[in-house]
Amino acid sequence: MANNKMNNLIEEINQKLSTTVPESSLNTNIEESMRYSLEAGGKRIRPVLLLLTLDMLSNEYKSGLSSALGLEIVHTYSLIHDDLPPLDNDDYRRGKPTNHKVFGEWKAILAGDALLTKAFEIITNDTSLTDTVKIKLVKRLSYASGHLGMVGGQALDMQSEGSSIDLNTLEKIHKAKTGELLKFAVMAAVDIAEPEQAVADLLETYSEHLGLMFQIKDDLLDIYGDETKLGKAVGSDIENDKSTYVSLLGQTGAEEKLKFHADAAYQCLNELPESYNTQDLESIIELFNNRES
Amino acid sequence: MANNKMNNLIEEINQKLSTTVPESSLNTNIEESMRYSLEAGGKRIRPVLLLLTLDMLSNEYKSGLSSALGLEIVHTYSLIHDDLPPLDNDDYRRGKPTNHKVFGEWKAILAGDALLTKAFEIITNDTSLTDTVKIKLVKRLSYASGHLGMVGGQALDMQSEGSSIDLNTLEKIHKAKTGELLKFAVMAAVDIAEPEQAVADLLETYSEHLGLMFQIKDDLLDIYGDETKLGKAVGSDIENDKSTYVSLLGQTGAEEKLKFHADAAYQCLNELPESYNTQDLESIIELFNNRES
Repeated sequence: MANNKMNNLIEEINQKLSTTVPESSLNTNIEESMRYSLEAGGKRIRPVLLLLTLDMLSNEYKSGLSSALGLEIVHTYSLIHDDLPPLDNDDYRRGKPTNHKVFGEWKAILAGDALLTKAFEIITNDTSLTDTVKIKLVKRLSYASGHLGMVGGQALDMQSEGSSIDLNTLEKIHKAKTGELLKFAVMAAVDIAEPEQAVADLLETYSEHLGLMFQIKDDLLDIYGDETKLGKAVGSDIENDKSTYVSLLGQTGAEEKLKFHADAAYQCLNELPESYNTQDLESIIELFNNRES
Repeated sequence: MANNKMNNLIEEINQKLSTTVPESSLNTNIEESMRYSLEAGGKRIRPVLLLLTLDMLSNEYKSGLSSALGLEIVHTYSLIHDDLPPLDNDDYRRGKPTNHKVFGEWKAILAGDALLTKAFEIITNDTSLTDTVKIKLVKRLSYASGHLGMVGGQALDMQSEGSSIDLNTLEKIHKAKTGELLKFAVMAAVDIAEPEQAVADLLETYSEHLGLMFQIKDDLLDIYGDETKLGKAVGSDIENDKSTYVSLLGQTGAEEKLKFHADAAYQCLNELPESYNTQDLESIIELFNNRES
């Protein structure tokens, strides 16, 4: 049931993403490069989380579509830039050659830039939201994706490569690099639906536990995952001498930490007023717990 | 007089740019890299044009400061990315080593990304504008800097390198690559001051002529300019086998075209209602005509 709902949302997101970047009269293939990465698949976890949170809060999700798309577009641009040779130098992403492998480095840099720009444009073009809500969303998205959020986390991650870091620094990296965009997913729904403050606070904490779960699971999958399902090689963290939850806590320790955050996320949902149907957000926790890619 | 006013604005812009990027608790030096390029000087033509246009329209310029800063920040990020080895591969900019030469390529890529993001954040944080005006500005800035504007123009420029193009394509490149941000400068002031439509139309045309003037002058300076004043080597267009206004029209032809657009820009100002004091915008035309760097 929940799965079916999720699949329908993914289909709607994919359909909308495919029409996000129109041809321009400039006749470059920069748009082709942008679309290549937008349409490369992926689990669409972030936009789905946004839409399900909004649906729980206000029994509709359509008014979240522009920020859901903007969020997925920011995520996509960050993958293109992170894959570049001066950063992670990855040849494959989701089982397909990375953007710069297909289009060349200069086009991958520009396609990423144009996608980041597009994310903000899409939110401003939404006709179902008030200008006040749209400004809140643009502000939240720019914070989450900037030097105090995702880009800052990626910088700290790059800087820490090859040196051993403690658990505290590791959490700092991932709260910024992965956590802020997942928090945006939940809190954008809060900006749109405007529930009471106590609800907003519980959902924010829920999103923080999800963010940490996501990264712990990522680290576990990089060692124990199935390459075919992942669409990329495992073992890259060891190869790059990266500190991870597994290298710092061992497999059992990392799995225990994953369970701790899952339990804490469930707890947040339990504390929400009974009028909310938390089933979909529970299934997100399960998904984060059990994902194989 | 006009010069003094301009210098005061430049000083105010520089001062505000220097406090735009606060330290973060993440302890990377990505902020240092962002500030390095923001504070590398430059003529600040774009924000000055915005503020002078607003001052003419509404006798105040303070409400234009956030979009003026956002505009200069977008321009700065674009220089960082354009200088990267896969794009223009430039070692010097404004007489100083380029960002990636000082901080390395990965940090230059991320600093550019974070600056682009910051531009939108700054506009949303403005407390002197209504949300409706801010959404107009974010929308206009995202259009001007995206794949249909600046980034699209840069892509077409890169793609055209080494092949001979006609005047039509050359104008298409520069209307997008340089023209859209200059148009933003003028039209952001229009969004804020909301003059009557006829005034808006005349100013838009004025900005289009300025954009073309800017590029023609750039092409002339790249051959006949003074390296010390420019802060970079001349002759790079010939070296890179690039079609320019000079290569297509000759020196005299390019100078005639520069004069044509200057005259047309003056004409737009002449047609404005007499209540507007157009002196400052006239001095911008002179500046574009006579600049040596």
